[in-house]
Amino acid sequence: MALVVQKFGGTSVGDPDRIRNVARRVVDTARAGNQVVVCVSAMAGETDALVALAQDLGQGEPSPREYDVLLSTGEQKTIALLAMAIHKLGHGAESLTGWQMGMQTDGAHKRARIRDIDCDRLRRVLDAGSIAVIAGFQGVDDDGNITTLGRGGSDTSAVAVACALEADVCEIYTDVDGVYTTDPRIVPTARKLSRISFDEMLEMASLGAKVLQVRSVKFAKRYGVPIHVRSSFHTAEGTWVTREEDVMEKLIVSGVTFNRNEAKITLRAVKDQPGVAGRVFTPLSAAGIVVDMIVQNLSRDGSTDMTFTVPQSDYAQALKIAQDAADELGATVEGNDSIAKVSVVGLGMKDHAGVATKMFNVLAEEGINIQMISTSEIKISVVLDEKYSELAVRALHRAFVDDGGQDPSEES
Amino acid sequence: MALVVQKFGGTSVGDPDRIRNVARRVVDTARAGNQVVVCVSAMAGETDALVALAQDLGQGEPSPREYDVLLSTGEQKTIALLAMAIHKLGHGAESLTGWQMGMQTDGAHKRARIRDIDCDRLRRVLDAGSIAVIAGFQGVDDDGNITTLGRGGSDTSAVAVACALEADVCEIYTDVDGVYTTDPRIVPTARKLSRISFDEMLEMASLGAKVLQVRSVKFAKRYGVPIHVRSSFHTAEGTWVTREEDVMEKLIVSGVTFNRNEAKITLRAVKDQPGVAGRVFTPLSAAGIVVDMIVQNLSRDGSTDMTFTVPQSDYAQALKIAQDAADELGATVEGNDSIAKVSVVGLGMKDHAGVATKMFNVLAEEGINIQMISTSEIKISVVLDEKYSELAVRALHRAFVDDGGQDPSEES
Repeated sequence: MALVVQKFGGTSVGDPDRIRNVARRVVDTARAGNQVVVCVSAMAGETDALVALAQDLGQGEPSPREYDVLLSTGEQKTIALLAMAIHKLGHGAESLTGWQMGMQTDGAHKRARIRDIDCDRLRRVLDAGSIAVIAGFQGVDDDGNITTLGRGGSDTSAVAVACALEADVCEIYTDVDGVYTTDPRIVPTARKLSRISFDEMLEMASLGAKVLQVRSVKFAKRYGVPIHVRSSFHTAEGTWVTREEDVMEKLIVSGVTFNRNEAKITLRAVKDQPGVAGRVFTPLSAAGIVVDMIVQNLSRDGSTDMTFTVPQSDYAQALKIAQDAADELGATVEGNDSIAKVSVVGLGMKDHAGVATKMFNVLAEEGINIQMISTSEIKISVVLDEKYSELAVRALHRAFVDDGGQDPSEES
Repeated sequence: MALVVQKFGGTSVGDPDRIRNVARRVVDTARAGNQVVVCVSAMAGETDALVALAQDLGQGEPSPREYDVLLSTGEQKTIALLAMAIHKLGHGAESLTGWQMGMQTDGAHKRARIRDIDCDRLRRVLDAGSIAVIAGFQGVDDDGNITTLGRGGSDTSAVAVACALEADVCEIYTDVDGVYTTDPRIVPTARKLSRISFDEMLEMASLGAKVLQVRSVKFAKRYGVPIHVRSSFHTAEGTWVTREEDVMEKLIVSGVTFNRNEAKITLRAVKDQPGVAGRVFTPLSAAGIVVDMIVQNLSRDGSTDMTFTVPQSDYAQALKIAQDAADELGATVEGNDSIAKVSVVGLGMKDHAGVATKMFNVLAEEGINIQMISTSEIKISVVLDEKYSELAVRALHRAFVDDGGQDPSEES
């Protein structure tokens, strides 16, 4: 008997018929001899409607505490309805809100972090042979206030519960079949990966693959609980995200990702002296702007150029902050929000030299100029003109995946 | 500084503008130097929508536990939104769900009874100078399950909290101006009462006046907390429901009520022997049917007639049960669901003889036949043909209130 945590998003529970479908899937898993915890989001559209009400009553700046009280009703609705649907299939089920399931968080409303999960009640429900139907996205702080976990919170709830219960697997149900080598809408030959390591998934999630949230992958990695990303429409296997030891074939490149939501800012002719970087990045950080890549060229004539990227949504504010710094430093500022970041990710890079060289050559053959480069042990990212992003992704996928030494599919 | 509990129903918080109106009213009360607890229902229409979802997913018989989890989201939404609206007026406010405010109930889902209220958190909010915005209708049982109090639960929540906090008053805001001597839609001369005793209000609430729930009046009576029933549209005084000692003028008749939702069943020629009543009423009780009036005539020739009334919604089932009993007892059954119960209520009856006689004469003068009679210390109820109900109410109101010895308005 395995202990399985299943997570269904808002689209999967978007209306009564879909909730009944989820109920069938969950009951099938239980009747196959497993203990089941099912974690759900608010019904599709519900959260948006609640946010609109909060914006109205709170006139654009609703109290974060009350915002969480309001939004947490969305998942509470779903757990009650799903439990009812499971009962109708003749199986025991008990719904648990964040506070009922012992989801302890800090007090940072709208973006709370999980501190601990007191699993007593969850275990009682499971030991009684029932399915535990838990509300994703929500918790409770030390003072008994309702909190929410922020974007992607339901994935995080599901994975955290799987870790706390030492579950055998956390299944994340989505509208895609699993994790792909790249976006199939851009590269038709993109293939579903059978297995991928936590580290690769982390890089891919950070780099733009939307199927899993970075936070939930970090949890799963820390506790070693495998995640199975699979389709809510059929029962075929999806992609297992697991420990590196359990990924049998270490692909040189398991994925090509891209992100068109960044912008780049360059400070030209910055005096090359200590403290300059701090003068630029301290105010950015104070404004809550997350800087992604930073590149600084070698000094020439005592001055240097420094380039960094920020989310496009923070571009205007970041440009203003950079201009202030440049004025003070006697430098000039250039900005560009028509860029794309394209990356190749793969565990096999650790053992294979020449991946970067091959990547640069592939792009050069397509006549694509590289504006910035950033690397880690298992990924190489380049920034290029946004208009070349699809061309770059297709060329890299062809070179590293389609024609690449190893087949990305484990079944081959 | 007074401690005021205010309760607003679903219509008063039915949309964002109405919620803002309630916020203004609540903040005005606080700024006048009072500590304020405000208890709210779900937004109008919300509960019906949730019930429809429960009926769908639960296929007509949703789990009572999950039904409560679902329905309690309605009030949780309102408290968050009202707290936000209060913040926007520049006043502190904190919302509290049933479990957060320490509303302890038994475990009878959908109709839980309040056991205790742990006011620690409520007091902390009030002591901090904030308005406590509490969810009506909901509580939590000893095992941490969400419960709801059933029909009229928000009135009960408000009054129970007022009692637990030893509040100076519990204000119930409604769409009428207060408690009337009878329904103004039937008798245009009906007048608002300034004060009425708990016992009179209990009789009137039981007898059909819909402005307050019986349960909440019982609470207020037990703890001696006055209820002020008043309009949510203006600030004029409404009706104070209070201890008998505080009702200065004891009216002989303070109200004329009617109820057209009952039906009457007669067992004719029942053998007059011990155990017969039990044979009839035990199965009715087992079926959850509440019998209201019971009349049994004197025995004649060793047999007797027995008549009782039940809610119209239970009429068909009650008739069948009565028929089974009659078959066994060798009696016959007659039923009639075209009846009305008309009552006069007044503290002054205790000290004034002849009220019943006057009532019977008034009805006789209108040619109205009385089918059943039932009395208590402060009320007389008669059952009559439904078609005469409005005529009877008008005649009794004219005789006892319009022309009655004392003016029902305390200000006079």
